[in-house]
Amino acid sequence: MDDIVMDAPALEAFCKQVFPQVHQDFAVEEVAPMRLKVRLKVAERHLRPGGTVSGPSMFALADVAVYFALLSMIGPKALAVTTNCSMDFMRKPAAHADLIAETRLLKLGRTLAVGDVLIFSEGMEAPVARATMTYSIPPEPAPDPAPGA
Amino acid sequence: MDDIVMDAPALEAFCKQVFPQVHQDFAVEEVAPMRLKVRLKVAERHLRPGGTVSGPSMFALADVAVYFALLSMIGPKALAVTTNCSMDFMRKPAAHADLIAETRLLKLGRTLAVGDVLIFSEGMEAPVARATMTYSIPPEPAPDPAPGA
Amino acid sequence: MDDIVMDAPALEAFCKQVFPQVHQDFAVEEVAPMRLKVRLKVAERHLRPGGTVSGPSMFALADVAVYFALLSMIGPKALAVTTNCSMDFMRKPAAHADLIAETRLLKLGRTLAVGDVLIFSEGMEAPVARATMTYSIPPEPAPDPAPGA
Amino acid sequence: MDDIVMDAPALEAFCKQVFPQVHQDFAVEEVAPMRLKVRLKVAERHLRPGGTVSGPSMFALADVAVYFALLSMIGPKALAVTTNCSMDFMRKPAAHADLIAETRLLKLGRTLAVGDVLIFSEGMEAPVARATMTYSIPPEPAPDPAPGA
Repeated sequence: MDDIVMDAPALEAFCKQVFPQVHQDFAVEEVAPMRLKVRLKVAERHLRPGGTVSGPSMFALADVAVYFALLSMIGPKALAVTTNCSMDFMRKPAAHADLIAETRLLKLGRTLAVGDVLIFSEGMEAPVARATMTYSIPPEPAPDPAPGA
Repeated sequence: MDDIVMDAPALEAFCKQVFPQVHQDFAVEEVAPMRLKVRLKVAERHLRPGGTVSGPSMFALADVAVYFALLSMIGPKALAVTTNCSMDFMRKPAAHADLIAETRLLKLGRTLAVGDVLIFSEGMEAPVARATMTYSIPPEPAPDPAPGA
Repeated sequence: MDDIVMDAPALEAFCKQVFPQVHQDFAVEEVAPMRLKVRLKVAERHLRPGGTVSGPSMFALADVAVYFALLSMIGPKALAVTTNCSMDFMRKPAAHADLIAETRLLKLGRTLAVGDVLIFSEGMEAPVARATMTYSIPPEPAPDPAPGA
Repeated sequence: MDDIVMDAPALEAFCKQVFPQVHQDFAVEEVAPMRLKVRLKVAERHLRPGGTVSGPSMFALADVAVYFALLSMIGPKALAVTTNCSMDFMRKPAAHADLIAETRLLKLGRTLAVGDVLIFSEGMEAPVARATMTYSIPPEPAPDPAPGA
């Protein structure tokens, strides 16, 4: 479990291809074995009145963070899907500041992966939210498929 | 716990005022004591490639559903905030179909409210997701505060 | 999804065999397709000082409720395991009253099942807790395995 | 947030007094600001057939871990109650090995505290489970109560 198979540029290129609507929201900051840091580049569309980042934007960040951490270890599996999420919203993010998600994969099984995430509002020390995400990993296509399969 | 204090038009008017960015996404379909049904009017911006509704859009729907159910019982408290969420994503929504959230308030306390939600893809019988949301309710301003307090 | 394959006596007999330590704690009250009701026969060992039922006892009840609901639909799979749980503890149970769990299976897939549970303290109308449990279902042994496999 | 007000012996003495049924199950291993490590001394009553630790026992350990971490920071508040829990069961604990919970408080507010927990089976490197617990903290009694209040 110590080899990264996709680095930050590979993850961003893949994201651009499969999630063209949202790829510009995120920047991968660090990739390490079973760990990843990603930034939500907060823009007007992520905000609620008063300048705080919306709940759905924080959900999206946590979800992307674990997805990228997973892909960094297993390669480009567009079809991995979130099956479960729990989140705690603990503090109000600073107005207009970017959010940083720090994630670690706690389990990387054959069919299920679990990662947890702390979300920080840039410039604040305490986390604004935490999340855990479970991903279901689609089975490998059978090796040596018959031609035309 | 059986009197509704905000009905569907009141909830939508309030939403338009406090969440101008997203109010047009949602339509309140039914309001009953401790229960509420709300529709996500699925548009291009809610979709992932392939036409399926994105996770953040489902989160937003579940969050709004419990928020509206809460407001229907306690009136317009813009400052109630989500503190916890758990979600299970169980089936792939039909492409381009609206989503319907059916929520019930399980607890309506003085400081905390808990609601759960089933999300249906219009036209499918089985739910596509479930969620539980906890809201923290801000304290009432003290009645008859002393002048200058 | 409408045929029950284990009824209440079959579930209790199976429980007695595989969980000899705890089977006497639980009584299956009702089994219906995708739904099940089970009682925790509250005894001294389930209580905290003051007579309220402990959190671990409520967890055990929710876990058993979804497990039994699952087995009622798929038969005796001792190896199904809980992979995820979320619970909300909403009210204090009545002292020394039994607890009743009402569960419904929301998803019964090939490898994952999801059920939610409301827990009632007998004699109280509002639920004391809610839970959602995900079970991982072990793969079927391959049909007609080669001899010696 | 950096002063511990109850150390390991104080926590164990308090536990013995308020939870006489279970205090002998747990040993506080380390207390640091906003962090705590506690051991479940696994005995026959915590096991399922095959020697694996039961889910309710892991729930109890996670719950106690966050409770102790909270008390270590705010002092003996027997009435703090769990309001929410999420857990992921990721690996099978080793048979008959003790479990170690490592917890950190992520939020210590006036009325709510949130802590997360990794549970390790002694001798295994990867965690067997993770949990997040929310505690509701009872309000302070008013200062200087009238005599006899």
